[in-house]
Amino acid sequence: MATENYTNAVLVIHGGAGIITREQLGEREQDFHDVLSAALSRGYDAWKAGLSAVDIITTAVSHLEDSPLFNAGCGSVLTHMGTVEMDAAVMRGSDLAAGSVTQLTTARNPIMVARHVMECSPFVMLAGAGADQYVAENTLAQETQSYFITPARQQQLDQQRASGSISLSEDNKFGTVGAVAVDDRGGIAAATSTGGMTNKHYGRVGDSPIIGAGTYADNRTCAVSATGHGEYFIRTTCAASIAARIRWGSQSLHDASEAVVCDELLKLGGSGGIIALQSDGTGVATINCSGMYRGVVTTSGDVYVAIFESGSGIWKNIAG
Amino acid sequence: MATENYTNAVLVIHGGAGIITREQLGEREQDFHDVLSAALSRGYDAWKAGLSAVDIITTAVSHLEDSPLFNAGCGSVLTHMGTVEMDAAVMRGSDLAAGSVTQLTTARNPIMVARHVMECSPFVMLAGAGADQYVAENTLAQETQSYFITPARQQQLDQQRASGSISLSEDNKFGTVGAVAVDDRGGIAAATSTGGMTNKHYGRVGDSPIIGAGTYADNRTCAVSATGHGEYFIRTTCAASIAARIRWGSQSLHDASEAVVCDELLKLGGSGGIIALQSDGTGVATINCSGMYRGVVTTSGDVYVAIFESGSGIWKNIAG
Repeated sequence: MATENYTNAVLVIHGGAGIITREQLGEREQDFHDVLSAALSRGYDAWKAGLSAVDIITTAVSHLEDSPLFNAGCGSVLTHMGTVEMDAAVMRGSDLAAGSVTQLTTARNPIMVARHVMECSPFVMLAGAGADQYVAENTLAQETQSYFITPARQQQLDQQRASGSISLSEDNKFGTVGAVAVDDRGGIAAATSTGGMTNKHYGRVGDSPIIGAGTYADNRTCAVSATGHGEYFIRTTCAASIAARIRWGSQSLHDASEAVVCDELLKLGGSGGIIALQSDGTGVATINCSGMYRGVVTTSGDVYVAIFESGSGIWKNIAG
Repeated sequence: MATENYTNAVLVIHGGAGIITREQLGEREQDFHDVLSAALSRGYDAWKAGLSAVDIITTAVSHLEDSPLFNAGCGSVLTHMGTVEMDAAVMRGSDLAAGSVTQLTTARNPIMVARHVMECSPFVMLAGAGADQYVAENTLAQETQSYFITPARQQQLDQQRASGSISLSEDNKFGTVGAVAVDDRGGIAAATSTGGMTNKHYGRVGDSPIIGAGTYADNRTCAVSATGHGEYFIRTTCAASIAARIRWGSQSLHDASEAVVCDELLKLGGSGGIIALQSDGTGVATINCSGMYRGVVTTSGDVYVAIFESGSGIWKNIAG
């Protein structure tokens, strides 16, 4: 697949992209579908209640963070030291407000920390021990390392350490999670949360918490959340580039997303994908690899969830 | 001043922007001129020797880092804990290669660490203790805290602590340093280095190390280094926005820089400025505040250094 198009979308989410095969997933395929559906359903409830785009995306992303299936929050991949270091960012399209955190080690929901930084601090981005201190001082929900670390991630790290490689996780290649939403006032927002790379060294920061790379939102253009080999998404300022092509090049969301993901990123060697959404409910999921955990819910409560090629997903209606 | 235009430029540098008055500077005005001139002269020598744009900018920025007058390297402002936390980034326009570091505490020249990350690691951005570890393991030049901390910065912190405020330093408001250059093959590059904000908490990261915010380079458009109230430069993806307006909106460097700095940033409340340069030697310095430590050297060895309004600077020729 290259680009999948959505209309009348309220919320689009992803749970990472990469080389995903049915053989790898096995019986977990249904589990992934269930968690994605539940995240969309919760986001739809927030939309129906008239909540803001920021409320909708943080509701959905928190749900994905709480699932051990995805590389964010509980179930984050492990660093070389066997610990979790989590990154997250939120951006609101109405006023370009943004919040970002990197190297969190204690926050249960990194996306809620990013939101708190956006709404309650004079800063945009916090890193390292200082970011943990911010979590503690503002009494945001914390957990011990044992909450975050799953047996599957420990096994991945052991294998990676044995092979000496640093990778974007093994069987779930780019397990970042993210969401873009539009509220009933036409406001859009984007959120991304990740545990980064298995066996990462040196405090490596990927694209997720970088405004303009992995996360971006501007009501005039679109909201974008990316997932993939972060270094390439930073170098292409991926999310902001899609918005810039729309704003200055008069490109459609579809064309802009295809050009950045399937041409610019690919030329540099960067694999992965994006989800994006505009104020009018036009949305896309674009990847340059074999699969992306993704889903969308529309204004009428139709939910679509898919992992593999375009059109392979399942539609169902949740509106009561 | 809004925008100052340069032609046949080889190297443009800045040493920060903000509310700068002759009364504040006093007899130090000549000292600032001397250090800026020397940085330009060293960069010019690198250009004359046929070195790359990355060589030219890192030569110039290293010189500014070594001076206690500027808020980068030696002379960095102090955090709430009384320590230095330094950020830097480098980007090369020919292939969008980039390197970035944040919260360095031991590296003598943060810009050389950013360059090393770009050239020798699989990463783009490193943060915190891991970034310090990278410096140590790669035996890059280190110094103890006493090397970085000047009496003037200690006094600033004491005053800030007493007043309880967090600011972008007191008498030298946005003391970031940066450079953009074009080499004799038409390759451009950008570099930015900073000590951040006096009395900063929580591991705050500004725009300098964020690719697309404070630092950006693409041979197709321009190289940009920014200085100012970083949060606003992140939210506007300042440096990448100037490049995008040129690439997709067919705007001139002058018009793009004015629109971003004097309209978009100002509307959000962000003060500061940028320097930018194109492959053909067209350069600008654009600010929305009263002054910017800045300078340019041209292909014929003409050096211009200024702090206040446009045209207030001094031209001299260094070509032998």
